[in-house]
Amino acid sequence: MTGYTATVTVRLKSGVLDPEAETTQQALERLGFELEELRSADRFELDLDAASAADARERATEMAERLLANPTIHDYEVGVAER
Amino acid sequence: MTGYTATVTVRLKSGVLDPEAETTQQALERLGFELEELRSADRFELDLDAASAADARERATEMAERLLANPTIHDYEVGVAER
Repeated sequence: MTGYTATVTVRLKSGVLDPEAETTQQALERLGFELEELRSADRFELDLDAASAADARERATEMAERLLANPTIHDYEVGVAER
Repeated sequence: MTGYTATVTVRLKSGVLDPEAETTQQALERLGFELEELRSADRFELDLDAASAADARERATEMAERLLANPTIHDYEVGVAER
């Protein structure tokens, strides 16, 4: 078993309203910053022991499917690196 | 001017309690997943026009300092990619 860190990035699907990101963007603009767009995402970093990187990725993907992301409104991305 | 996407990842400093991450980890364990640790972070993706990647990074860093991160409890990381 090797230690891996899987990162799951959970984003709202495009078209889903994100009032928090909009508010943050407006606050930055009020501070004088210029930006085209701001998107926000949640990122989970999971430390786990697995037989291989592929196994770690598979487990992290299952965690995303079952709990971390809501497939109705979220897209997610999984990355794996050895610890 | 070129279009860049700057990503700002905001994490709690180590030692700062993260009850949300703890709850998420417990929920995953109740579902039968095994993991050593779970950390959560906020990720902001900023689309901006800048003269260079270095300029985009500097502006994103300033946004992190002034609004996106709270230096008392957060660490942050800035990445920049051309759009």
